[in-house]
Amino acid sequence: MDPNKKKISIAVIKRLPRYYRYLYDLLNMGITRISSKELSERMNITASQIRQDLNCFGGFGQQGYGYNVESLFREIGNILGVNETFNAVIIGAGNMGQALANYGNFEKRGFKIIGVFDVNPNIIGNKINNLTVMHMDKLDEFITNNKVDIGILTVPYDQTPVVAERLAKLGVKGLWNFSPMDLELNHDVVIENVHLSDSLMVLGYKLKEMRNKENKK
Amino acid sequence: MDPNKKKISIAVIKRLPRYYRYLYDLLNMGITRISSKELSERMNITASQIRQDLNCFGGFGQQGYGYNVESLFREIGNILGVNETFNAVIIGAGNMGQALANYGNFEKRGFKIIGVFDVNPNIIGNKINNLTVMHMDKLDEFITNNKVDIGILTVPYDQTPVVAERLAKLGVKGLWNFSPMDLELNHDVVIENVHLSDSLMVLGYKLKEMRNKENKK
Repeated sequence: MDPNKKKISIAVIKRLPRYYRYLYDLLNMGITRISSKELSERMNITASQIRQDLNCFGGFGQQGYGYNVESLFREIGNILGVNETFNAVIIGAGNMGQALANYGNFEKRGFKIIGVFDVNPNIIGNKINNLTVMHMDKLDEFITNNKVDIGILTVPYDQTPVVAERLAKLGVKGLWNFSPMDLELNHDVVIENVHLSDSLMVLGYKLKEMRNKENKK
Repeated sequence: MDPNKKKISIAVIKRLPRYYRYLYDLLNMGITRISSKELSERMNITASQIRQDLNCFGGFGQQGYGYNVESLFREIGNILGVNETFNAVIIGAGNMGQALANYGNFEKRGFKIIGVFDVNPNIIGNKINNLTVMHMDKLDEFITNNKVDIGILTVPYDQTPVVAERLAKLGVKGLWNFSPMDLELNHDVVIENVHLSDSLMVLGYKLKEMRNKENKK
C-alpha cells in the first residue's frame, strides 16, 4: 500500500469541502499562505483540529510558514476528485429537480447533468437548462447508451426506493437522495442523503435556545 | 440551574433530527420499544454512541427493556422544539425558493412560510402554495407587521450578505442560507448554512474510491 494513500476517515472527508471552499475564497483574495491559527479563526474550527485533519494527507503545513493556499487547495481538490467528471441524471423534474438542474455550480465541480426524467405529461418535453425532460419509459435506454454515474432523486417519498432500485439495477453507482428518508440498498451503490428538514430543525433548536435566554433576562 | 437542563453539545443536537426521523418511522410501524443495539443496527451508529447521545438528556433507556419509542420521540421533539412555531419568509422565488415554498414537510415541523419575496417583475404577483410573491420593497413593512422568525435565503451569491444584513436589522433572528457561502454576521442572529455542493463532493469522493477499488481488481 502506498504510504501516502493511507485511509482517510469519512469524518475528515466530510469536512474537506468546507476547507476547499475557504481556500478558494482565500485564493480569490490573493492570499498565498495561511497559518492553522488564521484558518481556525476564519473557519471556526480549532487550530489543532485543522492540523490533525490536514496531517491526514501529508505534511503540508510548515512550522513558521503555515500552509501554501494554492497547493493545499489543489491537494484537497485531488482527494475529493474535483478533476474527475461524473455524469448525472435527475429523476423528478418538480421544483427541486429544476432547481438542481439550473444550478451551474455543480458542473464547475465536475458533475454534469446529462438527463432529466419525470412521469408528468405536463412537464415532459419542457426544456430545463438546455435539457429536454424525458419520460421515465426512456430511462433504461438512456442509461444503456450513456455513461451515467449518479442518479439525483427528487421524486415523491414513496417512489424513492422503487426508483433507487431501478437505477441500481441499471448500473448507476451513486445516488444523491433528496427524499426525507435514509435510503439504503442491498447493492454496491454509494448513497448521500440530503435532509433539508434536519438543518431546519437545528436552526429551530438554536432559535428556541435564544428565546429561552431572552426570556430569562 | 435545572439539572435536567444541562447543556447539550451542538454535535449531539445535530444528530437528534436523525433519531427523530427513525423513531417516527418506528412509531408508524407500531414498534413501541427498541434496544440501543437494534437502533444502532438500523441507524448505522454504534450502540455506545447512541447510549451516550441519549444519556445527555436523561436516562430514558432501561437495562433489559431498552427505549420506549414514543416517549423518546416526544422528548427529542421537545428538545428540538418541534412544538414551537416559527414563521419564515423566503427571499428569492427562483427554483430553489419555489421548491422550498412548496415543500409541505416544513409546516409539519412547525415552520410556517408566511411570505415570499423577489425583485424579478416576471415573478412578482405569482402564486406559490397560496402565497403571492411580493416585491422586496414591501419587505420592511411586512416584517414590521408580521412576526418573522426566519429568513430563508435563496438569492444569488453576491446578494446574500446584503439581504442577510437587511433581515438582521429588521430583527429577524434566524437565517437559513442556501447560497454557497458560509454566511456570518456581527448580529445576534443564528445562521444555518446549507451547502448542497459539499454533499455532492462527498458523493464524488466515495465514487472515486469505488472506481479505484474496481480498477485494482
